[in-house]
Amino acid sequence: MVELIIKKRSGEVLSKEEYTTIIQGFISGEIPDYQISAFLMAIYFKGLNQEETANLTDVMMRSGELIDLKEIPGTKVDKHSTGGVGDKTTLVLAPLVAAAGAPVAKMSGRGLGHTGGTLDKLESIKGLSVDMTRKEFINKVKEHGIAVCGQNESLVPADKKLYALRDVTGTVENLSLIASSIMSKKLACGAEAIVIDIKVGYGASIKTTKEAEELAKIMIGIGSKMNRKVSVFFTAMSQPLGYAVGNALEVKEAIDTLQGNGPDDLTNLCLELGSEMLVLGKVVKNRVEGIKKLKDQILSGAAYEKFKEFVKSQGGEINMLEKPGLLPNAKYSESYKSKFDGYITELNALDIGLASVKLGAGRETKNSTIDYGAGILLKKKIGDFVKKGEVLAMLYSNNQANFVKAMEYMDLAYKIGEDKPVSKPLILKTLT
Amino acid sequence: MVELIIKKRSGEVLSKEEYTTIIQGFISGEIPDYQISAFLMAIYFKGLNQEETANLTDVMMRSGELIDLKEIPGTKVDKHSTGGVGDKTTLVLAPLVAAAGAPVAKMSGRGLGHTGGTLDKLESIKGLSVDMTRKEFINKVKEHGIAVCGQNESLVPADKKLYALRDVTGTVENLSLIASSIMSKKLACGAEAIVIDIKVGYGASIKTTKEAEELAKIMIGIGSKMNRKVSVFFTAMSQPLGYAVGNALEVKEAIDTLQGNGPDDLTNLCLELGSEMLVLGKVVKNRVEGIKKLKDQILSGAAYEKFKEFVKSQGGEINMLEKPGLLPNAKYSESYKSKFDGYITELNALDIGLASVKLGAGRETKNSTIDYGAGILLKKKIGDFVKKGEVLAMLYSNNQANFVKAMEYMDLAYKIGEDKPVSKPLILKTLT
Repeated sequence: MVELIIKKRSGEVLSKEEYTTIIQGFISGEIPDYQISAFLMAIYFKGLNQEETANLTDVMMRSGELIDLKEIPGTKVDKHSTGGVGDKTTLVLAPLVAAAGAPVAKMSGRGLGHTGGTLDKLESIKGLSVDMTRKEFINKVKEHGIAVCGQNESLVPADKKLYALRDVTGTVENLSLIASSIMSKKLACGAEAIVIDIKVGYGASIKTTKEAEELAKIMIGIGSKMNRKVSVFFTAMSQPLGYAVGNALEVKEAIDTLQGNGPDDLTNLCLELGSEMLVLGKVVKNRVEGIKKLKDQILSGAAYEKFKEFVKSQGGEINMLEKPGLLPNAKYSESYKSKFDGYITELNALDIGLASVKLGAGRETKNSTIDYGAGILLKKKIGDFVKKGEVLAMLYSNNQANFVKAMEYMDLAYKIGEDKPVSKPLILKTLT
Repeated sequence: MVELIIKKRSGEVLSKEEYTTIIQGFISGEIPDYQISAFLMAIYFKGLNQEETANLTDVMMRSGELIDLKEIPGTKVDKHSTGGVGDKTTLVLAPLVAAAGAPVAKMSGRGLGHTGGTLDKLESIKGLSVDMTRKEFINKVKEHGIAVCGQNESLVPADKKLYALRDVTGTVENLSLIASSIMSKKLACGAEAIVIDIKVGYGASIKTTKEAEELAKIMIGIGSKMNRKVSVFFTAMSQPLGYAVGNALEVKEAIDTLQGNGPDDLTNLCLELGSEMLVLGKVVKNRVEGIKKLKDQILSGAAYEKFKEFVKSQGGEINMLEKPGLLPNAKYSESYKSKFDGYITELNALDIGLASVKLGAGRETKNSTIDYGAGILLKKKIGDFVKKGEVLAMLYSNNQANFVKAMEYMDLAYKIGEDKPVSKPLILKTLT
């Protein structure tokens, strides 16, 4: 292993066999963590080429169980978002695309840090379970066209172990490692095509379009080496997506969106991502046809019905959806008011995400419990004109002590100026 | 710690407090090895500046016991060699300088890999012990002007632990880390001034004069920050020093040299290094005076008498010195003969070192036992003209099976050509 570390340290290219040795040795414990972390730091400085990244992805993918979705008819298209604030896209997209006829067999994650997780949001619906056997999962997709579950330990164990080590050794920020982590999981889950939503901006781990482009190229490269179609969208995550941030609050906003009453940014993003999923899934011929088909699902009520069917099939109480007042709520609320007259020029998604965590909607550590009713409902977003004293956002929590810290982040999040800011597009770029 | 890793990864300068946190946390086990190894790899790529290197050295030095040599009168000058093949310099230099009036309180190391160690060489003298309490050590220096002992566990534990980790994580080759490792040990041993002999060439870890210069500057810089005079010699280690390689064989050659009958290269090196030690130790005013004083010690027999006094004081049987035939010898010997007519153009010290290890004179692993009688006596060195069939070297071992492998290295070591090679100086450069 020392020789392999020195090889990478010198900027040399390692073979697939060498990555197999490294990853298998890491999982079995034969190669100690301290050698892997030195190797990761060498990768940070010397990088991996396309071939190496694809090989590493392949080796990681095969480190555990591989899900076989062949039993499910149709092309299985997965979607991945790199994580943002108020990003309830999956909650809308999964039933929407399923209603349009593409099978959705989705494995999702939990929230960590300032970004939320689909599983946590879904679990704010009483009774809903994301734990199921592989067979139950596939049967649900076959029966209902949709299922969402968690990733269990047997799926890409190499990624789990490697990410934990990267997290504590300053080796997270390498695009090849990020790409292989994402792609190995998606591919192990049986995806035949993948739509990737790279969030760019304050509230995302990717801060610039340049970085997003590099990451996109690496992921498309992995897909092409492994014979999978990959489409990448760059979407703005300077301010949160939609108005709701927090688990039950986001479920409500997702329901509104499925019923045609959602915020424009969220609705449009779901139509664009969903249409690409339909194209890759060969349900429609092109983007225009896809968008029309998805809009039809919303207008006809089919999208919302599919959501209810999905929730019911996973044990959730659907009366909670009919009467969203039954969803977990918060004992306490406080309004956050503007301190100036003017236009909102900035609404930093990172600070809103952190405020929401402080209110109890997220996890400060891996073992924190979530307050499903906690969160933030934004009333004003970038470009809105506000008067001093006007309510910019409502904050919710079941613990009154949480508001002080959250308000500090709210002060950081909003910037108000004299000039109306130029409005920027939500979808910055698409790459395939 | 993650933040400190990321700081160094970004090329930032860390403070003395930060190095204290890192080294203390590493020794106590609070900071795990996998974070330290990532940190070391970041240092490999981003380096340490002079200030950081001096701070790291200081923190490492203070990680264990500090030897106080104040009880011993005079300026305590230590000598360090970066390790070579056939390098019995300490065996000659210590009694020579002590005879000239400078106190020699020397802590030495053991051989590892292809280079020998002073302690092993001394222990080939029956009865001689390098284990003693700190008090015994100081008393011996006070009484005899000389003592040589091993470094115990309590001395710079940080270096011991750090080196073990560097060795297996591809992070040995950083000059700041090399310099702080050497200097922390010398300073912890109480040296007030240090003469450093950087070996350069095939048989040394430093292969080029450029690298040696960088290392020298770093070590002189550490010395200047810590108020210690440091003089650095670059000496050639392309071919072995002297003619003898192997423990008892080198003791014999050291005795010859102390009696004025040693090889020119070894004799001159000892005179030059020793004279610098006398200058730094304020025993003489300048190099010329120093060399004269040392030659006097050899000619008068005082140097050899001091060696005997030293060996006796540490329990060694001095009749072994009087009759070197009593020193450990080898049951078996084989001659290595030239396969061509011509001039010896190369005599690779690394290969000779490895051949010697194969014969039993060194350790293949940390737990190997040493055959004190094993080794090589070179008969011909670079520049000598030889005829086909002429003996180039004699090989000695107590295990007949060892010769085959050793001979393979001998074939690699000697290169013979038509043209007489240009002779090169032994001392390449001196820096203070």
